[in-house]
Amino acid sequence: LLLRLAELVGVAAFAASGALVGVSKRLDLFGVCVVGFVTALGGGVMRDLLLGIHPPAAFTNPAAAATSAGVSLLIFWFHPIVRRRRREILILDAVGMGLFASSGAAIALDREAGAAATVVIGMLTAAGGAVLRDMLVNEVPLLFRRDLYAIPALVGSLLVVVLVKMRGDVDSAVVVGTVVATSTRLTAMWRGWSLPRPRNYERH
Amino acid sequence: LLLRLAELVGVAAFAASGALVGVSKRLDLFGVCVVGFVTALGGGVMRDLLLGIHPPAAFTNPAAAATSAGVSLLIFWFHPIVRRRRREILILDAVGMGLFASSGAAIALDREAGAAATVVIGMLTAAGGAVLRDMLVNEVPLLFRRDLYAIPALVGSLLVVVLVKMRGDVDSAVVVGTVVATSTRLTAMWRGWSLPRPRNYERH
Amino acid sequence: LLLRLAELVGVAAFAASGALVGVSKRLDLFGVCVVGFVTALGGGVMRDLLLGIHPPAAFTNPAAAATSAGVSLLIFWFHPIVRRRRREILILDAVGMGLFASSGAAIALDREAGAAATVVIGMLTAAGGAVLRDMLVNEVPLLFRRDLYAIPALVGSLLVVVLVKMRGDVDSAVVVGTVVATSTRLTAMWRGWSLPRPRNYERH
Repeated sequence: LLLRLAELVGVAAFAASGALVGVSKRLDLFGVCVVGFVTALGGGVMRDLLLGIHPPAAFTNPAAAATSAGVSLLIFWFHPIVRRRRREILILDAVGMGLFASSGAAIALDREAGAAATVVIGMLTAAGGAVLRDMLVNEVPLLFRRDLYAIPALVGSLLVVVLVKMRGDVDSAVVVGTVVATSTRLTAMWRGWSLPRPRNYERH
Repeated sequence: LLLRLAELVGVAAFAASGALVGVSKRLDLFGVCVVGFVTALGGGVMRDLLLGIHPPAAFTNPAAAATSAGVSLLIFWFHPIVRRRRREILILDAVGMGLFASSGAAIALDREAGAAATVVIGMLTAAGGAVLRDMLVNEVPLLFRRDLYAIPALVGSLLVVVLVKMRGDVDSAVVVGTVVATSTRLTAMWRGWSLPRPRNYERH
Repeated sequence: LLLRLAELVGVAAFAASGALVGVSKRLDLFGVCVVGFVTALGGGVMRDLLLGIHPPAAFTNPAAAATSAGVSLLIFWFHPIVRRRRREILILDAVGMGLFASSGAAIALDREAGAAATVVIGMLTAAGGAVLRDMLVNEVPLLFRRDLYAIPALVGSLLVVVLVKMRGDVDSAVVVGTVVATSTRLTAMWRGWSLPRPRNYERH
């Protein structure tokens, strides 16, 4: 299935982003692999914990776990080469984000979560791994400070809910959600869109 | 119901405390809202994950989520005004803490958790959000270092367990637990009570 | 049962390690106890959340919780004495690590988790508490940077899966897993083994 392949591309891009952060923090081989794994699959684990899916799909999906581990190892040894391909990774990461938000929403709907819960869980599936990654390496999460990352995920997740409620076909809703979320993200990167930050702040 | 209203007051006060921390960390609009949400509802999410309530009540409670989002947005734009009302927020926060500890304990009892588990889960419902907040913005949790915050929550939670075991009426137990926990917290603030810290420490 | 006693020894060693970190971070009495509790029992809580065991065993096991609290209090008051016994604590900690990895794997198998999921969950049971501890006190997790800690846990956990699949007797598998994981860890400490770290890194 094409969605299945896209999922592995997303896992690989997320794992690469996590492993690169691990390398830049000078973690050892184990630490780099864990941060890669958590970035790639942490959002899905959160989704499954919230929905009561035990054990989480990430733990029963050997292809995803192997992809995450393989990519982390590659990054560990070849990070200088990969670093030059940063733009390509960001594009694949946007695809993964769109897909995870949309498929996360579809899974939440399937477990009969309400509409609002579904939208939040879809966004969390896509963005939760990056937040966990930054918590593990002791940084304030990047996507709380810069970039438009979670909002495109929210858009994709919302779109899936609307389309499924309106027309009922889950697969096409996931495809549309993925395409819209990914292109929103890429446009935001292209144009340098970002959210406002608080003004007039004086240290108390 | 009065408890329902008190819950929203508590959510609002917790969200305000979280959003103010987000603003002081210079997060963007999304980050401020997430930290507000996590502070307000993170303790309840932990409670529900531990008790196996899927999805957590926070995800199926539009009033609480909307209150949290609305307060976070207000703080984002009007934080200089709110900051001058810090004392009022702390008082409302104490009410929320007392209520969350007591209602968390009542929910745990309802799920047939044991007495010790119930006391801990009640405390976690009240204090977990503040710990998550500080982890998200990369600080050592404030309530591990200063203030008497978790102990009043523990007192309220314990009181609910004792009263329900003795007399069986949950609603009145929650009211008593809330009042006692809140007044313990306010007295501790008033008198500047705090827990001891380790002595004679020399860096190794 | 001997395993039961070994479990309490492990809880005590883990709680001591957590409480010592809390003391060195100058947390107050409550903070030291929480970090002790999370270090000792956080890995088991993660295991139970992933497997859908509600509430987690740590919350229904008064002996473990009391051991964790008692050890944390002792550390709070007598940390200068304990600090001189650091080597003994590390040895007991290695016993706890081996046992938690092996018993965690046995519990996961009992809940019919797959082989790969079981190995990861066993490792997480042993190492998750230490990662949570470092996240709580705002450090990059030690075992992502130095030491061979999670790998011996992985070995023990894997061994339990293999032995149970081959011969079916869970108790002896746990004993063998514990002994092998513990001695791998002690040998690694003795010899100063560690994993490679990334090379040629230049700040971008």
